[in-house]
Amino acid sequence: MAFLETFITFVVSTLQKYCDFLQKYLHISFFFCTFARFLIWVIMDVLKRLQLLRAQMRENQVDVYIVPGTDPHASEYMAPHWMEMSWITGFLGESGTAVVTMDRALLWTDSRYYLQANKELAGSSFELMRESDVDCPSITEWIKQTADTNRQWTVGVNPEMYSVNGYKALRDELAETGIVLHSVDLIRPIWTENRPDIPMNPLYIYEEQYAGESVANKLQRLRQAMTDKHCDAMVIAELDEIGWLLNIRGTDVDFTPCVIAYVVVEMTNCVLFVDAKKVSAEAAQVLKSEGIIIQPYGNVCSYLQGLKASAVMLDGNRVNEALYEAITVRKVVVTPSPLQVMMSIKNEVEIAGERQAMLKDAVALTRFFHWLAQKEATGMAETEITLADQLHQFRAMGEHFTDESFGTIAGWRGNGAIVHYAAKPESCAKIEGNGVLLLDSGGQYLEGTTDITRTVWIGDEKAIPAQVKRDFTLVLKGHIALARARFPKGTRGNQLDILAHQYMWQEGVTYGHGTGHGVGHFMGCHEGPANIRTDNNTNPIRLGNVFSDEPGIYRAEQYGIRTENLVVTKKVDSASLAHSTGEEYYEFEVLTLCFYDTRLIERSMMTADEIDWLNAYHARVYREVSPLLNDDEKAFLADRCKALF
Amino acid sequence: MAFLETFITFVVSTLQKYCDFLQKYLHISFFFCTFARFLIWVIMDVLKRLQLLRAQMRENQVDVYIVPGTDPHASEYMAPHWMEMSWITGFLGESGTAVVTMDRALLWTDSRYYLQANKELAGSSFELMRESDVDCPSITEWIKQTADTNRQWTVGVNPEMYSVNGYKALRDELAETGIVLHSVDLIRPIWTENRPDIPMNPLYIYEEQYAGESVANKLQRLRQAMTDKHCDAMVIAELDEIGWLLNIRGTDVDFTPCVIAYVVVEMTNCVLFVDAKKVSAEAAQVLKSEGIIIQPYGNVCSYLQGLKASAVMLDGNRVNEALYEAITVRKVVVTPSPLQVMMSIKNEVEIAGERQAMLKDAVALTRFFHWLAQKEATGMAETEITLADQLHQFRAMGEHFTDESFGTIAGWRGNGAIVHYAAKPESCAKIEGNGVLLLDSGGQYLEGTTDITRTVWIGDEKAIPAQVKRDFTLVLKGHIALARARFPKGTRGNQLDILAHQYMWQEGVTYGHGTGHGVGHFMGCHEGPANIRTDNNTNPIRLGNVFSDEPGIYRAEQYGIRTENLVVTKKVDSASLAHSTGEEYYEFEVLTLCFYDTRLIERSMMTADEIDWLNAYHARVYREVSPLLNDDEKAFLADRCKALF
Repeated sequence: MAFLETFITFVVSTLQKYCDFLQKYLHISFFFCTFARFLIWVIMDVLKRLQLLRAQMRENQVDVYIVPGTDPHASEYMAPHWMEMSWITGFLGESGTAVVTMDRALLWTDSRYYLQANKELAGSSFELMRESDVDCPSITEWIKQTADTNRQWTVGVNPEMYSVNGYKALRDELAETGIVLHSVDLIRPIWTENRPDIPMNPLYIYEEQYAGESVANKLQRLRQAMTDKHCDAMVIAELDEIGWLLNIRGTDVDFTPCVIAYVVVEMTNCVLFVDAKKVSAEAAQVLKSEGIIIQPYGNVCSYLQGLKASAVMLDGNRVNEALYEAITVRKVVVTPSPLQVMMSIKNEVEIAGERQAMLKDAVALTRFFHWLAQKEATGMAETEITLADQLHQFRAMGEHFTDESFGTIAGWRGNGAIVHYAAKPESCAKIEGNGVLLLDSGGQYLEGTTDITRTVWIGDEKAIPAQVKRDFTLVLKGHIALARARFPKGTRGNQLDILAHQYMWQEGVTYGHGTGHGVGHFMGCHEGPANIRTDNNTNPIRLGNVFSDEPGIYRAEQYGIRTENLVVTKKVDSASLAHSTGEEYYEFEVLTLCFYDTRLIERSMMTADEIDWLNAYHARVYREVSPLLNDDEKAFLADRCKALF
Repeated sequence: MAFLETFITFVVSTLQKYCDFLQKYLHISFFFCTFARFLIWVIMDVLKRLQLLRAQMRENQVDVYIVPGTDPHASEYMAPHWMEMSWITGFLGESGTAVVTMDRALLWTDSRYYLQANKELAGSSFELMRESDVDCPSITEWIKQTADTNRQWTVGVNPEMYSVNGYKALRDELAETGIVLHSVDLIRPIWTENRPDIPMNPLYIYEEQYAGESVANKLQRLRQAMTDKHCDAMVIAELDEIGWLLNIRGTDVDFTPCVIAYVVVEMTNCVLFVDAKKVSAEAAQVLKSEGIIIQPYGNVCSYLQGLKASAVMLDGNRVNEALYEAITVRKVVVTPSPLQVMMSIKNEVEIAGERQAMLKDAVALTRFFHWLAQKEATGMAETEITLADQLHQFRAMGEHFTDESFGTIAGWRGNGAIVHYAAKPESCAKIEGNGVLLLDSGGQYLEGTTDITRTVWIGDEKAIPAQVKRDFTLVLKGHIALARARFPKGTRGNQLDILAHQYMWQEGVTYGHGTGHGVGHFMGCHEGPANIRTDNNTNPIRLGNVFSDEPGIYRAEQYGIRTENLVVTKKVDSASLAHSTGEEYYEFEVLTLCFYDTRLIERSMMTADEIDWLNAYHARVYREVSPLLNDDEKAFLADRCKALF
């Protein structure tokens, strides 16, 4: 047995080195990396990570250990260092929570990942808990049912991986039946080899010419908000908030240009917890001039232990429990971070930048669709992935392009109906014959973040099915209705949502995602706190908020249709409101500048007002985008932008 | 002085007897009754009610005493017995709260009542606090500012007049600065003479042929809801809930046919706290056969003191603090009453009854408008009040009519722009010349409760201003859009609201009231828990819910326009949803059957779809209502229902 273990260890460490190397090129070699990891997992399973964990559980008197698929910064895109759930289960999906007892091991995930989980958990002792199924117990329900009633059970979690509110909710729910929640990191002692490091990429200063507001000003406004809540210190863990507040950016995670760090703001102090080797001398100089003190990333808890303040403020959904537990100040005010609202209100420079980014995006997309039309004419030999790569190339030609803002979704025919579809090299579709292509993509430019979806027909125009046209037009009518909305100050997104849904609801059709999300400024593609969804959300829509407007219709195994623009909220010119009763009204300015595939429109379903809107939009697109195109592209765009009558 | 007091007492008691006599005829002699009360108040002020209250405060060591304008049953329409706020202040408005300290006396009320309060408080030592003004402190803010910081202050309130949640909120707010809230009724000891009794009108059994569900069944469903919350007893104080649950009705308060009572439901017991003399032998027999035990109204607290249960459930917004304090059972679950949802879901019998009530209402309104047209032709000598009286007469001709469901709002010209306008004999407008008349009224019939608003033009049709037409059409378009909505199960009213607002918001115009309220069944004209408003309300719209659909536009001192129908929520026939994605969809059936004044429509603003809807509605109105009219009325209705092209 000793020989076998030695042999396995050798194989593993070799593969792991290979994998580490690949990881650096993760965005281009995702497939190989995944495959390598899969192999590693298969072998490591022999070494029984689960057994190591259970030994830790025994030692720490923990009956149940929960490993959620989260990181300490409430991030949308995680660094591999924190993928504890994937490490312990072998499941590589983006959403899931592992639960381990002495005799069972379970993974909760939702219906998007059932197939993948079944595949990746095969052979492991993990059982899949299908959390989208009606009869599936929640994790706490399952623990309560399973817990031994003869003695007190203890559940352990790594407090870094839980938000303060999430931890409290879990603790309270377990306490109902006398189960105790215990903060303990049992993965760190056992994931000692081959754990990826916390990313160490350099940070850079995000110039005020793009940010539109100085760090000094932002700090002043934040301190005012702290004072309003009678607090004199604030802990910040969300990376978007940190990047925005301190005008810094980085490349630590995919798609979002953020820096892995913590920040503690006091009334005269601002400490950035980030490893010194990430900060160039030049950047350090700028940060110093702004009065920002740099301390090592790992020092945040000890700093909080020594913090002197009368009241500390933190966002219970965005700060992790480990930081909360480190605070020794008696008064802690758990309240939504004022930075969320501040970030969401884009200033004039940011909005102007967003317009520029959108123009670059429009050029890239027009070139792409022109290229696609040529391919169509000359014979297509493309797949969903080669299309995405080609689009990436056109985007990368744009000045100040740094990255995509999320992984492009190129869904051909039935794949377009899978809302979170991600094409895989081994299974992606070849674009051939007639069909609907859904293309959802976005870029990060120094001037701003973009996100756009267009649905186009490929192939013989005469073969477009009537139902495709009907669905496309229902989506477009909703998309236009939302874009044209006017509403008084104080209106929430859930009030506006029905404008996008109304026409398809008349036909009994809907979509399973939100209508609009907030968009960050050269930062996260998804941002709070307001949004345009059916859900309850008490945040009103504020001037300067940028949202997506993206209704869709999905026909399983046939096609997906989604039409998405970004819009920015602005004041209605009161001169255009002749009979106003005096309140302040808001409306949206459409930022996106890309034509719709008008061949997919069922003309008879459109009102005169909608046609007017569409023609005005297309005229604007041509006017603003064509000066940046060559003659061929220009002619192509002119054709796609011609008016409907 | 002794002589003076004796004399005043004599005058007061004589006037009070006269007033008591008038009170019985309150609905027809409101003016005289108000006047007599005013006189009584002027004289009683000499006797210094305030001084009596302050003596009580001293005795009970209370620094501040708050007298809210509420009753123990969270009622919309109060019995005079509970008008403590009006008694202590002399202010007779429907909304206000009195606050008395040793040296100040204040009345908080909103902008609707500033004028009235200024008049009625004149000469008293009460100061008006204008609570709609931005700089007006809230009651708790004022108390906190005023409280002596050198010692602990005590605020007193009558716990019967506060909901459990209201009391808790007040207590917590005061506790922030160390002020103590004390439950004590200081009005009862001093309002000993001439206090109106709690109404003692007989209750009657509401037959199952109208209610559509037996008491046994309702109790069984309620007990299931209690079990779901792990409760085995429930306290009910809201009169609508009591009437609905036990299928009883009465005439204790204006407009709502309810019985003043409390109910305690246990798993095998149901106790109705109501005075025996209100219950005829026959009614007692029916109640007994349903297993309902009758105890005196005043016994509820002692019953709760002796109640044996493992957990008591109550609605914190609908049960008063006095009952809560009487409960000795250790576990009290404060949760929204399940009866609110149960009541709001009308059964088939109730919906059929509602349709019948609406038909009777339509006949009354058609006759009224026919009568009005004749008056117009022959010379009008009417006022807002004589119109309301005439409409009442037409309604009263309907079978099973018992009362109006609220005081009719007849607003001529500028008066129509006052949303809660109530015409007064001394100041009501004469209907003469050209103008807009807004008429909002409703009836209580054994079959159901109605509520309808129509806005009509009186005078020369050629004189209708363009702006009136524009506003009327904006309102009508929103009214139709809401009526035509389809939406998936789970949708909330705040999602639908914008359908009614959308067109006027494009012009920067809005209205200061909700778009739709729930309507009870032969019960309260305003009912929860769902509604159609911009506000946050997590209650979804449920099948069988009845709502008003009543957008409006108000031009101060010019005119008010409101168009209101009632609608009931029903399932969309899935056959009409050819391309449905499978969810359950809901839509509204319009219950109201009264024509709109099409002379006020600006035709060019209407879409073809809207015109189709309008023509179909008018055809239906004529089809259903005309068989119940005489030939003259029929001809009139045919003219008003003719199709628009």
